[in-house]
Amino acid sequence: MRYSKAFIQTKASPKNVQDIDKKDDEIVSYQLMARSGMIRKLASGIYEWLPLGLKVLQKVENIIRQEMNKKGCLEVLLPALQPKELWEKSGRWGIYGKELVRLKDRNDREFCLGPTHEEIVTNMVANQINSYRELPFILYQFQTKFRDEIRPRFGVMRSREFLMKDAYSFDKTDKDATKSYQDMYDAYSNIFKNCGLKFVIVEADSGAIGGNFSHEFMVLAETGESSIASCECGYAANTEKALGYISKNNNAELEKIMEKVETKNRKSIEDVSSFLSQNPEKFIKSLVYICDGKLVMVLVRGDREINEIKLANHLKSTDLRLATNKEILEKLGVEIGFLGPIGMDKNKIKIKIVADESIKYLKNAITGANKKDFHFVNVNLNRDFKIAEFVDLVLVKEGDNCKKCGKTLNFSRGIEVGHIFKLGTKYSKTMGAEYLDADGQKKEIVMGCYGIGVSRVVAATIEQNNDEKGIIWPFSLSPYQIGVICLDIKNEELFKIAQNIHDKLEKAGYEVL
Amino acid sequence: MRYSKAFIQTKASPKNVQDIDKKDDEIVSYQLMARSGMIRKLASGIYEWLPLGLKVLQKVENIIRQEMNKKGCLEVLLPALQPKELWEKSGRWGIYGKELVRLKDRNDREFCLGPTHEEIVTNMVANQINSYRELPFILYQFQTKFRDEIRPRFGVMRSREFLMKDAYSFDKTDKDATKSYQDMYDAYSNIFKNCGLKFVIVEADSGAIGGNFSHEFMVLAETGESSIASCECGYAANTEKALGYISKNNNAELEKIMEKVETKNRKSIEDVSSFLSQNPEKFIKSLVYICDGKLVMVLVRGDREINEIKLANHLKSTDLRLATNKEILEKLGVEIGFLGPIGMDKNKIKIKIVADESIKYLKNAITGANKKDFHFVNVNLNRDFKIAEFVDLVLVKEGDNCKKCGKTLNFSRGIEVGHIFKLGTKYSKTMGAEYLDADGQKKEIVMGCYGIGVSRVVAATIEQNNDEKGIIWPFSLSPYQIGVICLDIKNEELFKIAQNIHDKLEKAGYEVL
Repeated sequence: MRYSKAFIQTKASPKNVQDIDKKDDEIVSYQLMARSGMIRKLASGIYEWLPLGLKVLQKVENIIRQEMNKKGCLEVLLPALQPKELWEKSGRWGIYGKELVRLKDRNDREFCLGPTHEEIVTNMVANQINSYRELPFILYQFQTKFRDEIRPRFGVMRSREFLMKDAYSFDKTDKDATKSYQDMYDAYSNIFKNCGLKFVIVEADSGAIGGNFSHEFMVLAETGESSIASCECGYAANTEKALGYISKNNNAELEKIMEKVETKNRKSIEDVSSFLSQNPEKFIKSLVYICDGKLVMVLVRGDREINEIKLANHLKSTDLRLATNKEILEKLGVEIGFLGPIGMDKNKIKIKIVADESIKYLKNAITGANKKDFHFVNVNLNRDFKIAEFVDLVLVKEGDNCKKCGKTLNFSRGIEVGHIFKLGTKYSKTMGAEYLDADGQKKEIVMGCYGIGVSRVVAATIEQNNDEKGIIWPFSLSPYQIGVICLDIKNEELFKIAQNIHDKLEKAGYEVL
Repeated sequence: MRYSKAFIQTKASPKNVQDIDKKDDEIVSYQLMARSGMIRKLASGIYEWLPLGLKVLQKVENIIRQEMNKKGCLEVLLPALQPKELWEKSGRWGIYGKELVRLKDRNDREFCLGPTHEEIVTNMVANQINSYRELPFILYQFQTKFRDEIRPRFGVMRSREFLMKDAYSFDKTDKDATKSYQDMYDAYSNIFKNCGLKFVIVEADSGAIGGNFSHEFMVLAETGESSIASCECGYAANTEKALGYISKNNNAELEKIMEKVETKNRKSIEDVSSFLSQNPEKFIKSLVYICDGKLVMVLVRGDREINEIKLANHLKSTDLRLATNKEILEKLGVEIGFLGPIGMDKNKIKIKIVADESIKYLKNAITGANKKDFHFVNVNLNRDFKIAEFVDLVLVKEGDNCKKCGKTLNFSRGIEVGHIFKLGTKYSKTMGAEYLDADGQKKEIVMGCYGIGVSRVVAATIEQNNDEKGIIWPFSLSPYQIGVICLDIKNEELFKIAQNIHDKLEKAGYEVL
């Protein structure tokens, strides 16, 4: 391919520059993609893929297709226009919010533009499959997805229209579904390996899609949105999900007599701990949440933060938030800053208490006295208050140890490029995807779903591989593999030689510029 | 590929049948596609492509891509979501009607889902291109298009969401643009040849897209929506556009004296001709149209029909319709059925008269006397009325002769699968796509656009190639090329042999089922 015929509109073209330098998109991959003429912004979160960019996008697509086919997955193409009725059936029409692009056809029938295809594929399978003999199978597609992001940014990394590979597995049993999940786990590992990327696979929270369990595939890059905790032993997790710190504080301190001390106007742990000359690690921090309308008190050691995703998962909550000062004062009669677990069981309003494991081994701790301007000191578990169950509720942090092996966790940043979910029967149930088993019994199909942000992989690759001179392509994704430069195009002989080299390399199967 | 692993959901599955037998879709290609498990209807005009169907769709896509690349065209991927502003710029937001799927984003900004991409690609080029040195080039893409058809039907042949290959050429001069057009003409010919299809290329009316000239690629099939007139000499055209009949009526009849005869209550040509014992070919039929608000009288020989597309093109009309009886009576004072050209020049209201060539050689003709219950007989051109210019305005019909060579035209039916347009500067002008020429002068880029309905090609192939046993695939589009059937799967030896044959053929590069 001759450079002059390749429609490579680099920054050299002055018209191109104004488009790029938007503050919103000051991320290196977007800058490099726009400046090299890979993509062009049409509107906020909407991009045109120019020839150079599309070549890379299609390479990612082909690598994915190859690995999916190797696992016996079957490619389909489902519609972008999805009838409202199916989304009502799954219960997501109401809960998906403004991110879902909704529209009406000429007859006022409501549709959405698919941000994902669980409804469509499950409905299709429900209508096509009858017998256990027709299972298992995995369907996949490359589809333009639409999500009306509240703040589209980072170029094609978080856009409103993007290319996704989504796949859905259908199995007879939970055990079979786990095998399909493992197949996709392996396929995804091969895909990102074949793309030439450095990545980690982490345990993830399954978020809005819900289901049994899930893993994220993260391309390591300092600019990544996601924080990852990992350990030498192989354990790795999104910090949203990572298992918490193990308290080694199995101390032999003797229990002292509990006392109430005045801590006038000192509410924060910082203030109280400096006033009492004690570390924040001595504190029992007591937070009050409203969980699906009910009050819950959450206890955690003074130096740690609550991971609200873990908390919501533990409480099986769909609506969780911190209570306001006013709500706490009204319901518990205590001012924020002086809250504590002691005496809560005698309160008029019943309040559930959940505690993080970090307070399990505390001795002679400090906590609010449930009375303005007073704290208790020398508080001890079981003697002064009781906790039914300890759970892991904290956000892991630098210095924490791996719960699996005890070594210190490493922290890094990454870009999520793939996500696999074991869904179970969540969608089969609502969409009626059943089969008749060998014994004639109706059973629900067990599902999994698996996604790769194809457009995003291209940007993530650049985030991971660039320097001050530009993009450093992994060989497998480079739009051209070899560049032939004739140093003096006016020298006919030289030009002929260059052309000859180009032709020979192209014939040998290389992509030559 | 094992049949049991291929997700081929044929009609054998009882759940499948109800979907198919909708009256609306009683067309053989849809029936066969649905029954063989190639596609599944999700909603009116919206289809799911299942593995077997997608394999064929992708084969068509690959054949197209290969031929486009051979011509040096460059693949891009433009967004489906298109901002209203660009459609206002081209002037099509207002005129596109309900077929355009419109929607609002979360900030109430208006978008449409692209039914075609002239606006987007021309705007992109306008923003990227500066110099004549960057021209020419042809960009193409495979894109899901959205058209909210008033009556979606014929399965994927006329659907609301479908796959299209669209291409756009950008040239410096009109002459260069004609070369690009010829390149695409050749590429399209190769594409349909490589698909294994019998097709004709016809001159076409360029319809709503407008522009200089255009050709349609028609797959021949009795069930086709379009009527085609063609000749041994190579001439072929959509009957909407086909050049009309040559009057051989260069007769030597002597001109008789014109007379007014009473034809009480006889209005239709049929009635008057039988009353006067004359052929309809002796009549001058006079029709009155309202063309952009003004009256126009159109003359054609009594046995012929007006082609309103030709008429609108000739009059450069954007709003053309037959006048009502009431309008004619009010404005011309004549009742319908007794209209004629004689004396129209003396009428109070000026009326333009246009005449088809078919009346040029009439002698002693019959026409309305512009008076209720009276006709003129023995009317002769130039002596009794004058016509400034004759144009070709008729719909060709069985028995007509080719205007190019004089031989009898053949009529057949076809399905439009490709359409190429020479657009000229229509979009460059409105979207500001200009370049600086070698002499520093600003000039408009000359464009062409070229489309293939990829989904439609699949259905058209089936319409052309089927019998009572089902689809007869051209080799190049067959989802599988070879089927291996083991006649007794319980016979282990036989099964082993079958498997062995399968494996060897697959290794040799065939797609084996």
